[in-house]
Amino acid sequence: MFINIKNMVGSNRPIVITDDKVNSIYGHFFDGIDVIVLPQGELNKNLDTIKYVYQRLIELEADRTCSLVGVGGGLVLDMTGFVASTFMRGLSFGFVPTTLIAMADAAYGGKNGVNFNGFKNIIGTFKEAEFVYSQPEFLKTLDEREFKAGIVEIIKTALVMDADLFSFIEKERDKILNLEMELIEHLIKRTLKIKTDLVKLDMFDNDERRKLNLGHTVGHALEYLSEGVLNHGEAVAEGIVFSANASVALGYLKEEELKRIEELFWSYSINKNVNIKKYSEKDIIDAIKKDKKRNDSSVNFVFIQNIGKSFIQAVPFGRLEELLHDLY
Amino acid sequence: MFINIKNMVGSNRPIVITDDKVNSIYGHFFDGIDVIVLPQGELNKNLDTIKYVYQRLIELEADRTCSLVGVGGGLVLDMTGFVASTFMRGLSFGFVPTTLIAMADAAYGGKNGVNFNGFKNIIGTFKEAEFVYSQPEFLKTLDEREFKAGIVEIIKTALVMDADLFSFIEKERDKILNLEMELIEHLIKRTLKIKTDLVKLDMFDNDERRKLNLGHTVGHALEYLSEGVLNHGEAVAEGIVFSANASVALGYLKEEELKRIEELFWSYSINKNVNIKKYSEKDIIDAIKKDKKRNDSSVNFVFIQNIGKSFIQAVPFGRLEELLHDLY
Repeated sequence: MFINIKNMVGSNRPIVITDDKVNSIYGHFFDGIDVIVLPQGELNKNLDTIKYVYQRLIELEADRTCSLVGVGGGLVLDMTGFVASTFMRGLSFGFVPTTLIAMADAAYGGKNGVNFNGFKNIIGTFKEAEFVYSQPEFLKTLDEREFKAGIVEIIKTALVMDADLFSFIEKERDKILNLEMELIEHLIKRTLKIKTDLVKLDMFDNDERRKLNLGHTVGHALEYLSEGVLNHGEAVAEGIVFSANASVALGYLKEEELKRIEELFWSYSINKNVNIKKYSEKDIIDAIKKDKKRNDSSVNFVFIQNIGKSFIQAVPFGRLEELLHDLY
Repeated sequence: MFINIKNMVGSNRPIVITDDKVNSIYGHFFDGIDVIVLPQGELNKNLDTIKYVYQRLIELEADRTCSLVGVGGGLVLDMTGFVASTFMRGLSFGFVPTTLIAMADAAYGGKNGVNFNGFKNIIGTFKEAEFVYSQPEFLKTLDEREFKAGIVEIIKTALVMDADLFSFIEKERDKILNLEMELIEHLIKRTLKIKTDLVKLDMFDNDERRKLNLGHTVGHALEYLSEGVLNHGEAVAEGIVFSANASVALGYLKEEELKRIEELFWSYSINKNVNIKKYSEKDIIDAIKKDKKRNDSSVNFVFIQNIGKSFIQAVPFGRLEELLHDLY
């Protein structure tokens, strides 16, 4: 594999933004290019890290003839996009995603940002990257948990919109886990296609895109409560399994489809060792409320109707707490 | 005078951002509306103040159904625009300028931002306010120095593009200083018109808009060196007078036009008590270099050809230092 950063930015001066791990593995791609290295971890996705990047850009005498190239996972790309949107009122920028989540999600859609006072991505802008150079070969050095977090994102998309993709992920498990590139590329392309379609539908119906929040209501809460023990994908996987159970309990989803969903997560060894029972219903509800930032009495929850079809329904917090109590 | 904030934002929930001084005089306009009060002063135009506003917005449970209304001078408007561009990836926002500079300049053009590590406005975005409610009656409570800083901005615009406006400012001095509203409105409208025209010309020639930097090369340096003693307008007035002197020294401008320019600043009692001689040429050059952020060997300097006509020319730093030495 080879990536040529200079070719990506045309006549501009490239400045790479990456994290310490990516830099230690792929630093040789950045020879002769200025590099800003970020610390890893969701806890560093904040304005202090952004200020560090601003400071480095000033030291490097960056100006509007520079292009920022974010090389890394969602965290690196989100922060690169935010810096590029706000430094000198906007530099050009592009992405080289190195994780499955970034290739199938974070690199597209123009959302960037950082966390602030415990609220995820509450500070940010909308600005699409000028280029995305996606190269699944990077996944060969990705650690297994990170890779599986990406698989969760793809399973989620399949559950919301695409039964065939779900079957494909069931059937081709061994090849996918073996990183057969052709299949991985298919997964990424298919996921991106579904998202593009959802965004188009969204012009007519605001709810469509929000279906991709499947598993995120409880997932975000668990991610927050676990204080870094669960990564985003693992937490969302728990959230999806809860949503599937709730969908059965309320008569929306058939028992056998729930089994297929649970089975799939188990067969990919996602969350085999996770014990979310240690969080009380009350803690989870409080974390959801905090995440919502609002004094709403209910939350828009994504239920599953069939594999490949989901819908949104408002659920009062009291009812959600009962469901958490009954199902865990 | 009366302003109705709620009417400005339609069906949205308004949140006012202002400073302590404006709030103390006009706070009664904000009855029943949430208000975020910023500390005054250029030194507070930084990311710490922005973080304070984010925190207050979270406490006030702001969401995308809110409109931020910046009520104040350029500082308040610049920070309101930046917060509105970056909180939750963008809230709607509008401006109520209360200073002459803000009415004739800062409220328009979509530039927002804050200072960072000594660099002015280096962090920011481009985003035009959805409404500007300009009400010159506010100027009646503006302090005299602030008002005159606005006059400097208008004189600068006249020097760059509009000899008639310059004559008008000369001729109508007493009425202008007496805040006769009809004349003040004329000054503001004329200045905004010139700027709009310059921006249009700019589509063909990048240099046009930059002519408005007249007086800013040396002015910014003096503002920085004075550590808050000179306000922006006073510093720019010094910079303009220097530019006019340099233009005469290099044979671009006639001596009698220089006299008219100096005379006008004196007749408005701008900088009567300012002594910039205490800064050495070297300090000024160093501050200009810092402001440029670059290792350039020259600076694009705005010279005056006649009253109403200016042009840009690159001047090597060595030559600029000689001019500073000879002319001060």
